[in-house]
Amino acid sequence: MPKLKPEELESRRQEIIDAARTCFLRAGFHQTTTDQICREANITPGGLYHYFTSKDELISAVIERSAAAAIERMRDLIEQADDTESAFRQVAGFFYKAMQDPDVDNITRLDIEIWAEGTKNEKLAARNRTAWVLRERWLEALVQRGIDGGIINREGVEPKGMASFLISVLIGMRVARVVVGEEFDTLGAMRSLFTMQGGRMAAELTELGVPAA
Amino acid sequence: MPKLKPEELESRRQEIIDAARTCFLRAGFHQTTTDQICREANITPGGLYHYFTSKDELISAVIERSAAAAIERMRDLIEQADDTESAFRQVAGFFYKAMQDPDVDNITRLDIEIWAEGTKNEKLAARNRTAWVLRERWLEALVQRGIDGGIINREGVEPKGMASFLISVLIGMRVARVVVGEEFDTLGAMRSLFTMQGGRMAAELTELGVPAA
Repeated sequence: MPKLKPEELESRRQEIIDAARTCFLRAGFHQTTTDQICREANITPGGLYHYFTSKDELISAVIERSAAAAIERMRDLIEQADDTESAFRQVAGFFYKAMQDPDVDNITRLDIEIWAEGTKNEKLAARNRTAWVLRERWLEALVQRGIDGGIINREGVEPKGMASFLISVLIGMRVARVVVGEEFDTLGAMRSLFTMQGGRMAAELTELGVPAA
Repeated sequence: MPKLKPEELESRRQEIIDAARTCFLRAGFHQTTTDQICREANITPGGLYHYFTSKDELISAVIERSAAAAIERMRDLIEQADDTESAFRQVAGFFYKAMQDPDVDNITRLDIEIWAEGTKNEKLAARNRTAWVLRERWLEALVQRGIDGGIINREGVEPKGMASFLISVLIGMRVARVVVGEEFDTLGAMRSLFTMQGGRMAAELTELGVPAA
């Protein structure tokens, strides 16, 4: 193996992670062979082994990279925004675009495979959990920023609970699309979220026995 | 094998499905052996084979039975309700209770395993899809009933889109609990849903570029 500088090693490592992700999105985690990943990354099995000793390690790296990339994209959006209100609009627009990505269902299928694998592999589950907790904390900080900026009602809105709810919607819409199939109405579901959020559905449904904070 | 009347065969079949579901919830779909199911159902492997020739067939039966049971429970709730408004309260209360079931995470883990299996097995995916489409149609009819009964705003609420949104929340909260782990705030997320639904979060977030119906 040729001697590489640390930054070259790191950039090669990133290329391999990208190649693995491409293969996983195409054929799923279980059906992908390390041979396919080697071909995609243009590396020999011996060369791959220098960076990753198992498919689990590659999966962990893909999970971490996806979470980091998602958070980085959201951070960029917010830094570009002039104020908190447009930051919220950017994030909602980002979610809206993500749901229309032609690859969205493959990304969800890969997530489902990773979650299923997590029921058998506690290390992978822990890695995945950390990645989602990061996203949740980031959303919590965003809600807190909305409260501080005066565009979210201080009364009645709990940043942590709202972050858990938003993570549920992010995950749930993607999973429901895959599970329900063609009958799932993606645009209608997104419009309904905003209809509910605007309080334009009904006032009578509020007293439902859920204990107050 | 002793001769059984058709109704005895059917009731034995149901017992086996219940036993399989118990085993799957305990150890997951993949880790459960047919031997374990036989022990739980108190039947010999030969006897089991008379009813189900593969684990896939058992999984399909468990999926159908879960969907039918969920819809039946919701139907009962609504028939017991005096009016549409209390029907909605019953359904929300039912969801609230379901999220506090000590078995809720195991039920979700089994769903995740079934969805993951569906990425490799189109027949199973189709069976599962049908079960979720049934739930979605049922929710759509419930929203329509709310509109007809005057407790849901006719303007701006699309029954199909709202049903897709509600299915997303039903799935998303359960999955997020498992994926995010202890940091997930179940009660806070439910309260946030009702805060948003009541329009008590903010008015400024409504113009987010999502095209109107």
